[in-house]
Amino acid sequence: MGPVLIVGGGDAGIAAALRIHEIDPHRAVTVLVADDYPSWSICGLPYFLSGETPDWHDLAHHKTFPGIDVLCGHRAESIDTAARQVTVATPGGGHVSLAYDALILATGSSPVMPDIPGKDLAGVCALHTMGDALQVDRLLRRDPAPRTATIVGSGYIGVEMAEALTYRGLRVTAISRSDPAFPTVDPPFGEALGTELRRNGVELLLGANVEAIEPGEAPHGLVVRASGGVSVATELVLIAVGVRPNAALAKSAGVQLGARGAVQVSRTMQTSVPGVWAAGDCAETWHHLLQRNVHIALGTVSHKQGRSAAESVLGRERPFAGTVGTQVVKVFDRIIARTGLLQREARDNGFDVRTTDLEVSDRNTYYPGATPMRMRVLGDRTTGRLLGAQILGHSEAEVAKRIDIFAMALHHGMSVAALADMDLSYAPPVASPWDPVQAAALAWQHQHAD
Amino acid sequence: MGPVLIVGGGDAGIAAALRIHEIDPHRAVTVLVADDYPSWSICGLPYFLSGETPDWHDLAHHKTFPGIDVLCGHRAESIDTAARQVTVATPGGGHVSLAYDALILATGSSPVMPDIPGKDLAGVCALHTMGDALQVDRLLRRDPAPRTATIVGSGYIGVEMAEALTYRGLRVTAISRSDPAFPTVDPPFGEALGTELRRNGVELLLGANVEAIEPGEAPHGLVVRASGGVSVATELVLIAVGVRPNAALAKSAGVQLGARGAVQVSRTMQTSVPGVWAAGDCAETWHHLLQRNVHIALGTVSHKQGRSAAESVLGRERPFAGTVGTQVVKVFDRIIARTGLLQREARDNGFDVRTTDLEVSDRNTYYPGATPMRMRVLGDRTTGRLLGAQILGHSEAEVAKRIDIFAMALHHGMSVAALADMDLSYAPPVASPWDPVQAAALAWQHQHAD
Repeated sequence: MGPVLIVGGGDAGIAAALRIHEIDPHRAVTVLVADDYPSWSICGLPYFLSGETPDWHDLAHHKTFPGIDVLCGHRAESIDTAARQVTVATPGGGHVSLAYDALILATGSSPVMPDIPGKDLAGVCALHTMGDALQVDRLLRRDPAPRTATIVGSGYIGVEMAEALTYRGLRVTAISRSDPAFPTVDPPFGEALGTELRRNGVELLLGANVEAIEPGEAPHGLVVRASGGVSVATELVLIAVGVRPNAALAKSAGVQLGARGAVQVSRTMQTSVPGVWAAGDCAETWHHLLQRNVHIALGTVSHKQGRSAAESVLGRERPFAGTVGTQVVKVFDRIIARTGLLQREARDNGFDVRTTDLEVSDRNTYYPGATPMRMRVLGDRTTGRLLGAQILGHSEAEVAKRIDIFAMALHHGMSVAALADMDLSYAPPVASPWDPVQAAALAWQHQHAD
Repeated sequence: MGPVLIVGGGDAGIAAALRIHEIDPHRAVTVLVADDYPSWSICGLPYFLSGETPDWHDLAHHKTFPGIDVLCGHRAESIDTAARQVTVATPGGGHVSLAYDALILATGSSPVMPDIPGKDLAGVCALHTMGDALQVDRLLRRDPAPRTATIVGSGYIGVEMAEALTYRGLRVTAISRSDPAFPTVDPPFGEALGTELRRNGVELLLGANVEAIEPGEAPHGLVVRASGGVSVATELVLIAVGVRPNAALAKSAGVQLGARGAVQVSRTMQTSVPGVWAAGDCAETWHHLLQRNVHIALGTVSHKQGRSAAESVLGRERPFAGTVGTQVVKVFDRIIARTGLLQREARDNGFDVRTTDLEVSDRNTYYPGATPMRMRVLGDRTTGRLLGAQILGHSEAEVAKRIDIFAMALHHGMSVAALADMDLSYAPPVASPWDPVQAAALAWQHQHAD
């Protein structure tokens, strides 16, 4: 078997390389890494910038790659899929041609930069790579040190960076086009998250579009102009309004694109071109509940897709099981998590969605440290099937792994009622005899199915 | 429809009563409670005795029972199943006969008291009811206050009480017949739990049988004599070596008994006698993995069985889904949890069990507060099927709800490999891109199935 060439050193590319080497240590594996940060925890960038992870080198998932040829600073420029060769720009400015037997495209995604005047001013940045984070860190270390920052966007990165820069001592304003903020949860949860941000000193502008960024007071001042005549004086602008798949290389090689311009893939991560696989942010993601491909850029998906692609390259079919929409974020001392479909998504996809909200203690109320947890369960009234769940609770309330109980139920197409029958763990310090997950399921059942 | 009579005011009995009333508010429901503590959190007794829950009234799951006739101090003495009548001893010393259309036996369990000399001495007690807890509390409040306690048994109650009495300021010795302690987990986890107990000042005597309890130094001294010539001077002896089902009433009424002398029940909690159901500690428990009835006395099971019995009484079949063996305990700042089969259980039941141990961080190692978690995964090498899991970790490591992810997988008969494919939540403060649950599953797969 000939060499495996992997384009991209992020989660998907490295997961694929490690799995190939794990199964077949004799197979030649080369990974092209465009920058100098292979297998870096991009999700950790906010914690480097907050100061909680002071040494950015700690963000490396792996520091060495025994048996794998990792080429940093190498950028794939074109693919000849007939000859199975990739032309690569090398760090020295030259070009080499690398032959492959199997090619895995793991080219990732790039931040969307809205086309507004002033987006290229110094002090305006995005946060997507370790290089970006070092750039933001340099901006934060200017003299005099900036005391204010403005974040455009209220998604995961926006919310995490609002926390991070507040921890770092800056006064933070977040401008969100959506109202409430954080549109990846249902509006009441977005409102609750907004309340948490404000309670911790973040200024929130909701339902506002950024129209321009202009130079402000010397030495580092900027002014962000938003809709409704609002303007915000600031020293740093972080734009975090989403990402788009890096699919230009694939497209130029004749590889078919799919959902939202991501590389079209089968469940075993094969593209439309023989010998070419794709995985991670650049590729489509199978949605287990919607039963179709979507585009979701998440580390958890990238790792699993990389591994699935590796198995497929080696002739072992391990189809990617798909996403069910699980995500979690910490914001100050709260965790907010979701899985499955939002109310709107469920309705748009033809489900007879019914929702139940419940406030419930994370553990027996008599046990010290018990905190209230806000839970939402979505189910289909016609079939009784669980469609999704959302939880907001204290950071010690096991919110994240409680959402995973719902995620497991979604993978198995369980009814809401059946979820209450599961043998979940209980002791007074950690839960109630009916876990909050089950209490919410029972409440849904009584409201919609009794 | 005639009245529903429920014998027993513990978790199962009250859960059944509440569910019947919830579905059919016009149905007459009477609950006979032998003591004065209906719907009390028996699992909370250690936290009352530790001082963490100072007011024992807070241990009531429910304080009122609107629409339900709860008769405290009423003890059922015999059942005429042909006439559908129960003879009841009333608090005043008289007897009444109560007619039923449907009868639910929820008579609970009683602590096993080993037949050793001295077990009836003042200062020797068990802990199974609120009354027991108040008695232990009185013993702890004697003057002079006891400074030492000895616990016989190293199961859940034994371990929780070792913690509780240590928190209360006593020097605690625990005598365990099993070596290592805590035989409800595999030996390496029992050893680790023993290390935690000792690290927190508990004296552990392992592999020791208690042979006698004798009076010791005045005023409250006792001496516990154990095998190997060991004797322990102490002021309080708590015996916690397990429970047995309270099935005498059922037996005398001609109701068939089953596993370990518990009342034999169908999946819908029906006994061998028409019109009679049973639920909770007095009844058998369906084991989903072993596909047979066993006897397990657990609050989580009792609540579910009580609810299932209620549905069945009302003609709505909601079979009890069964246990998969999930249990959790906190001991000082550690949580230890298990689900599924132990190694020995799996072997004894004919599985081709293989085990993988992994030490893994509960969250990304670079995130503050990350702690190591010890995980064990058991799977069947022939079929690849998950058989069980055990976790020991810090109390903030979401151990309890991580074991529930395994429990969900067990309910669905998943393979170990498939568990790694699940869409579980990740953000650096709460997990890793491969959740520790998945990291352990991947390690098992690589060790036993690649």
